[in-house]
Amino acid sequence: MLNVALMGYGVIGSGVAKVIEENKKLIASRLGEEIYLKYILEIKDMSSTPYADRVVTDLNIILNDPEVKVVVEVMGGIHPASDFTRSCLEAGKSVVTANKAVVADCGDELLALAREKGVRYLFEASVGGGIPIIRPLINDLASNEIEGICGILNGTTNYILTRMTNEGCTYEEVLKDAQKLGYAEANPAADVEGTDALRKIAILAALSYGKLIPMDMLKAKGITEVSLTDIAVAESFGCSVKLIGRAGKLDDGRIYATVSPEFVEDSCPMAHVNDVFNSILVRGNMLGDAMFYGKGAGKLPTAGAVVADVIDALETKYAAPARLFWEKADINDVLPADDVIGNVAKKFCHIFEDGEALKKAVEGKIDISFVSCSGDIHAVMCSEPVLEGSVKTYAVLS
Amino acid sequence: MLNVALMGYGVIGSGVAKVIEENKKLIASRLGEEIYLKYILEIKDMSSTPYADRVVTDLNIILNDPEVKVVVEVMGGIHPASDFTRSCLEAGKSVVTANKAVVADCGDELLALAREKGVRYLFEASVGGGIPIIRPLINDLASNEIEGICGILNGTTNYILTRMTNEGCTYEEVLKDAQKLGYAEANPAADVEGTDALRKIAILAALSYGKLIPMDMLKAKGITEVSLTDIAVAESFGCSVKLIGRAGKLDDGRIYATVSPEFVEDSCPMAHVNDVFNSILVRGNMLGDAMFYGKGAGKLPTAGAVVADVIDALETKYAAPARLFWEKADINDVLPADDVIGNVAKKFCHIFEDGEALKKAVEGKIDISFVSCSGDIHAVMCSEPVLEGSVKTYAVLS
Repeated sequence: MLNVALMGYGVIGSGVAKVIEENKKLIASRLGEEIYLKYILEIKDMSSTPYADRVVTDLNIILNDPEVKVVVEVMGGIHPASDFTRSCLEAGKSVVTANKAVVADCGDELLALAREKGVRYLFEASVGGGIPIIRPLINDLASNEIEGICGILNGTTNYILTRMTNEGCTYEEVLKDAQKLGYAEANPAADVEGTDALRKIAILAALSYGKLIPMDMLKAKGITEVSLTDIAVAESFGCSVKLIGRAGKLDDGRIYATVSPEFVEDSCPMAHVNDVFNSILVRGNMLGDAMFYGKGAGKLPTAGAVVADVIDALETKYAAPARLFWEKADINDVLPADDVIGNVAKKFCHIFEDGEALKKAVEGKIDISFVSCSGDIHAVMCSEPVLEGSVKTYAVLS
Repeated sequence: MLNVALMGYGVIGSGVAKVIEENKKLIASRLGEEIYLKYILEIKDMSSTPYADRVVTDLNIILNDPEVKVVVEVMGGIHPASDFTRSCLEAGKSVVTANKAVVADCGDELLALAREKGVRYLFEASVGGGIPIIRPLINDLASNEIEGICGILNGTTNYILTRMTNEGCTYEEVLKDAQKLGYAEANPAADVEGTDALRKIAILAALSYGKLIPMDMLKAKGITEVSLTDIAVAESFGCSVKLIGRAGKLDDGRIYATVSPEFVEDSCPMAHVNDVFNSILVRGNMLGDAMFYGKGAGKLPTAGAVVADVIDALETKYAAPARLFWEKADINDVLPADDVIGNVAKKFCHIFEDGEALKKAVEGKIDISFVSCSGDIHAVMCSEPVLEGSVKTYAVLS
């Protein structure tokens, strides 16, 4: 019996319990022993769950139990989740999390602490939900210089854009419906303003470049201003509008990360990533483009990724490889948020071959003062971000 | 200095040398030390390469050098590659390979031997070239029951089908051109008849279900009979023709693997996987569908995956997890090749809602005697294989 503790019994936490229960036999066949959820740290009423007898409210019970080797943190928020994580690692327990806020805030310290203690800090589920991306990026792409990374990183906004595109409903209409259906929160700001996606692209950039850009040095442009006209213009170019997170490194060594709506050509697999699905594209200097696609959120996909990390932590008793590490970026490491568009364009743009034709076509349809050329960092896949200030601009793939 | 030996300096072998050389600094920053290619086992003339002074023709030199911890096997073919691999593992050296023939032939024994010796046997590059699939399948999906797996697993055939579709050229014309350009071999049988894809789907099935189906128990239908009419019919249904490898497990526990051309709907990301790109879709019982996309072949993408495995083998000194193992399937474990279509259909088919309409439409266009219903194992993504004997049949996603 391999004993595990769970901190937090919300959507993901109850999913973790469900995956461990439903796939019990399968997991035992893979691990050689069953996983047993020994404690659940939770303050809310758990009497109606099958786990009432395992609830604890005092973290020390978990910390002081030598039988518990792995603790799952799915509490959400930075505090006290990060403090509890620190205590678990200090007590010599591996920690698995889906909490991107903690990873983005102090993942570097927690990784260093885990290494010092010879345990694991794993967070595959913190980016892209159930999509395998962190382990492949760290391991399978270890031989590659990461030239760029981009993706559809937020399921709520992709759901809204998909329905706007397919049904011709306005942003406001779809948002209201999505809230009713539980696909969007009552306060949807973190999703629709791009903050959630920004946090994820910042983590992916940290894994790729070894520097984590603090959130206050980043800017996102969400989907709140995407109109049906934008979608119609996109369609007239054979494109879909997608909210794309994007990160890269300039020749001078500075890194950047940004989130904004982009046009994605229909011939590109990413244009067909619809509803709550997410997709992440990584360009390696040897590999070229690789794309990872799947459910970027949701109780069971995310919980499945958490439990896979638990299996890994239980089975492979080695510290994280040295290359899995980042430090906090300082101001000199980062392209200022306001310069991202111009500089990214400078590095990656090649003039759109029929740029003039595009400019005319777009100007004829909407009120704009500038049309960007397209970029080629992910030329096979999608355009560069080209939203500048409040002026709406468009670019499509050449 | 971390010493590595290379067995075979063909396309992939020279790529491995190039990746190690070109990304030397990056790899050193990740590993803490540089990788040095100490020996190349090769019998051909190497005097024009920068490695002339490192060539050896006697495997014992590598086996007897305690400085060499990892050996890369990229010789191709089963013998003597598998024998040399066995010798290296017995000498306590980890082996990394891109050789799918060896993995499919005796990967089970080699994994067991590696475990016994406390070293690694890694083969990420053997399926999907540079696409991370084996490590994600083993690790990131460890908590999931694999309900099915399918994919575009051969770059040559996908290149041919893409050009037939885009340019309206016949199979014979494109094949001739592909041979000139080096995308297809002089004897293209392994690619165009589906054997290469079949070997890959058999390996993926082994990883998913713990049983490797021997090649002589499997059948593939390649692309040699795909005509421009087929492609036109597909287009009339909003589909593309793709060569799809597919594996799964029936309720009675028997497993199957097959390769055949299928119709894939344009709304599905896999329909837009073109040219030499590959794509693999895995359905987990918790995750749902995840898709992996990238360059499934080619010197540098494949070599990059090999070198990533080398980094892993050099850095993480633990034996493979127990769950990375399979045994050879016996006849009772496997759905007979001739029954695959009917039984897969029985398990997964639901009658195509407008099956009659489809039948009429198709019958109006081509000479067929049977139209299959569609399946839903990957209903979001693509159809079931429905080619039966010499009679051409079609199915599209409902």
